[in-house]
Amino acid sequence: MKKPGLAKGTRDLGPEETTRRKYLLGTLERVFINHGFEGIETPALENIETLTGKYGEEGDQLLFRILDSGDYLSNLRKSELGEQKISQIDSGWLQGHISSRGLRYDLTVPFARYVSMNRHRISMPFRRYQMQPVWRADRPQKGRYREFWQCDADIIGNRSLSNEADLISVFHDAFAALGISSYQIHINHRKLLEAVATHIGIADRFTSFTVALDKYDKIGESGVEAELSKLGVDSDSFAKLKPFLRCAPLNAESLSSYALLLGDQPSGVQALSELQELVTYLESTNSADSVLLDGTLARGLSYYTGCIFEVKIAGSGMGSIAAGGRYDDLTGIFGVRDMSGVGISFGADRIYDYMEQQNLFPGSLTQCRVVVCSMSEAALIRGRQYASILRSRGVSTLTYPSPGKIGKQLDYVRQRGIPYALILGEDEVANNTATLKNMETGAQQNLSIEHILEQLKP
Amino acid sequence: MKKPGLAKGTRDLGPEETTRRKYLLGTLERVFINHGFEGIETPALENIETLTGKYGEEGDQLLFRILDSGDYLSNLRKSELGEQKISQIDSGWLQGHISSRGLRYDLTVPFARYVSMNRHRISMPFRRYQMQPVWRADRPQKGRYREFWQCDADIIGNRSLSNEADLISVFHDAFAALGISSYQIHINHRKLLEAVATHIGIADRFTSFTVALDKYDKIGESGVEAELSKLGVDSDSFAKLKPFLRCAPLNAESLSSYALLLGDQPSGVQALSELQELVTYLESTNSADSVLLDGTLARGLSYYTGCIFEVKIAGSGMGSIAAGGRYDDLTGIFGVRDMSGVGISFGADRIYDYMEQQNLFPGSLTQCRVVVCSMSEAALIRGRQYASILRSRGVSTLTYPSPGKIGKQLDYVRQRGIPYALILGEDEVANNTATLKNMETGAQQNLSIEHILEQLKP
Repeated sequence: MKKPGLAKGTRDLGPEETTRRKYLLGTLERVFINHGFEGIETPALENIETLTGKYGEEGDQLLFRILDSGDYLSNLRKSELGEQKISQIDSGWLQGHISSRGLRYDLTVPFARYVSMNRHRISMPFRRYQMQPVWRADRPQKGRYREFWQCDADIIGNRSLSNEADLISVFHDAFAALGISSYQIHINHRKLLEAVATHIGIADRFTSFTVALDKYDKIGESGVEAELSKLGVDSDSFAKLKPFLRCAPLNAESLSSYALLLGDQPSGVQALSELQELVTYLESTNSADSVLLDGTLARGLSYYTGCIFEVKIAGSGMGSIAAGGRYDDLTGIFGVRDMSGVGISFGADRIYDYMEQQNLFPGSLTQCRVVVCSMSEAALIRGRQYASILRSRGVSTLTYPSPGKIGKQLDYVRQRGIPYALILGEDEVANNTATLKNMETGAQQNLSIEHILEQLKP
Repeated sequence: MKKPGLAKGTRDLGPEETTRRKYLLGTLERVFINHGFEGIETPALENIETLTGKYGEEGDQLLFRILDSGDYLSNLRKSELGEQKISQIDSGWLQGHISSRGLRYDLTVPFARYVSMNRHRISMPFRRYQMQPVWRADRPQKGRYREFWQCDADIIGNRSLSNEADLISVFHDAFAALGISSYQIHINHRKLLEAVATHIGIADRFTSFTVALDKYDKIGESGVEAELSKLGVDSDSFAKLKPFLRCAPLNAESLSSYALLLGDQPSGVQALSELQELVTYLESTNSADSVLLDGTLARGLSYYTGCIFEVKIAGSGMGSIAAGGRYDDLTGIFGVRDMSGVGISFGADRIYDYMEQQNLFPGSLTQCRVVVCSMSEAALIRGRQYASILRSRGVSTLTYPSPGKIGKQLDYVRQRGIPYALILGEDEVANNTATLKNMETGAQQNLSIEHILEQLKP
């Protein structure tokens, strides 16, 4: 028999990984809920026309497509196309005829579909969070899987910068709750980038400009200069760009240095006024710490129209662990216009890897507290009674199911990393007690169930 | 532009449904953890050979298959098969060449694969729970979707009836935690069914016998008689079956009435001795209530070998809301022999529907407690400060982002069903207070933030 294996690019999560991921997702969820976000869930399967054309040509290639059920060739077979030979058939053409559904590729497009379909029922501003796996047929790499979780929060139907300030507060609260302290929130504004592009004379090549800028982290200033020179930016123009290629705390000072450089260009004035409004909100709640105005931040995705964010951990060698921005037209792709919003997304897998690296997961996540071990059938029955009492008081307890030698049972307790064993033999049954063993110290105490409860209760 | 729609047989969960489903799954999860189960998660995508041949021919038809990525026809095109015309191609044959992965169809087969691949790392008995969606290309019906959640708990690598007793305790605790009181746990034993089949002389048609018996709920005694007469069971033999076609509390008395009827048939003796052991465990922890010995319970799935369970709600008109049983060979399909275990599965969607019908979801699941409403920009800034303080004390709070007329803001609070509004105007800002409005009673109080915290803190 062939040994079973995992599908390429997928993985199982064992008990420890599952507990840790649930802790991570649960912590983010509590922060979302504490900020008044409402959860929604969308199906894994979407009609293929909902998905295609939304993620660029490359994205379309990476969609997982579902083969239609039943005799999916029946229509083709009967049509005049039935005369075609396999050797003449293009894979892309055929899939249009035999695959009408695909797997969720991100949470933004399903959210846009949901809003379009339910807009008359939704109270605006709609604050939604969504935490679900997504699937991409990417080449698998270390730490990158074809199934991974996205955790998104968006506020739509309102243009106030108060929403951007809320999302920055979500970042602060989430990372504080996870014990991550060395993060920085990089902020820029797409209209500020437009003003800078105008300032250096390449407003007409704006998208290429942002693509070059986006590589700043990887290729540095000289790399960006080389990329831009290909776009026709000469050294004089690049010199005008240089003052923007830096990070500074987001505050009135950094904003006015931009204002001095950019003068009264309308898009620059608007962006700086919005950022100043954001600063006012942030400073009033002491949330401006770790927030940087980053002139190199561009966020390639073209649907962003206002503030853009990326959260990074300096010196981690990792890309961003969360990101987001303001968009003006979430649902336009589905025919519903003028739905402005702002959203963020946490990269749960990267955050998981970082927390593991830095030992930030609580040691106490092993959830079972005590295993009842018994030397005889009578002791097992008594032990089951004690287990039932402990559980009814919220102490996670399991009973080792086969009475007998204690050594084997204690091995099991040790292997699972459970902190206590409760041992029952003939004496314990006769005396209405049990022996509580602390697996770490080895200390044993013979106690009544009341005293055991006292020691173990949460 | 075409209006977007959902893929057939799928649905979105809005905020209320999401909160309720999370409450339901979270409650089950706490019970699993309280009983010392460990969570695992397996990927949605499995290699197709992991899935096919495990669910019968009908199951294979209902698998969702993923189209291979890239130029999936390339090999076929180059081979001699490339000369075939579409009109000559069988859908089933083609999918073998263009689809090498499928979507998870249940949690048992992925669990068996996980155990086979990780058996040297797992401490036995392995108590695992798993709660994930599964996908089946079934014909959609009211209340039945192509994506639905399964919630499974299994204990493998141990044959003690103590495990069966644990799972019955999980049933009791889970339904108690969900507020469901009118359930009954039906129990039977596959070996007892074998003994009964021998008793009435159709031991050689055992599977057909269990299939007929399984329909008892739907077709009644006369229906089962008609089905069995097709198998050659005459009225004398059926008369010998009739005493078994009933439910009675599972206890020493009901077991001895079976023993009297069946005599010393080995499989009957073994089954009754196991059930008596189970009774001893259940009675010692007062867990025998609502547990019935049900001679009509057969559980069609042929891999069950010992105790079988089904949980039903009398008079609900619903099928079972949970089920399970003992199997002797979980991982044999993957070449790992002798892995006995016992498992249960909760039908989360049916339980959800029943709880909604019976109004069993807590009314307080609306998670946001208060919306800050402000009449001016200055009030919004002060309001944001208060919101930040409330959140830091665990009071879920959001700030309405656009200051102005209060009526519109209160409409939003009402539409979302949030219990409090915190209103700030010029006076409140000047006096360092805010007006707390109870949305249900309409009562308003002008208070300091300390007093507001006092009233709202959880």
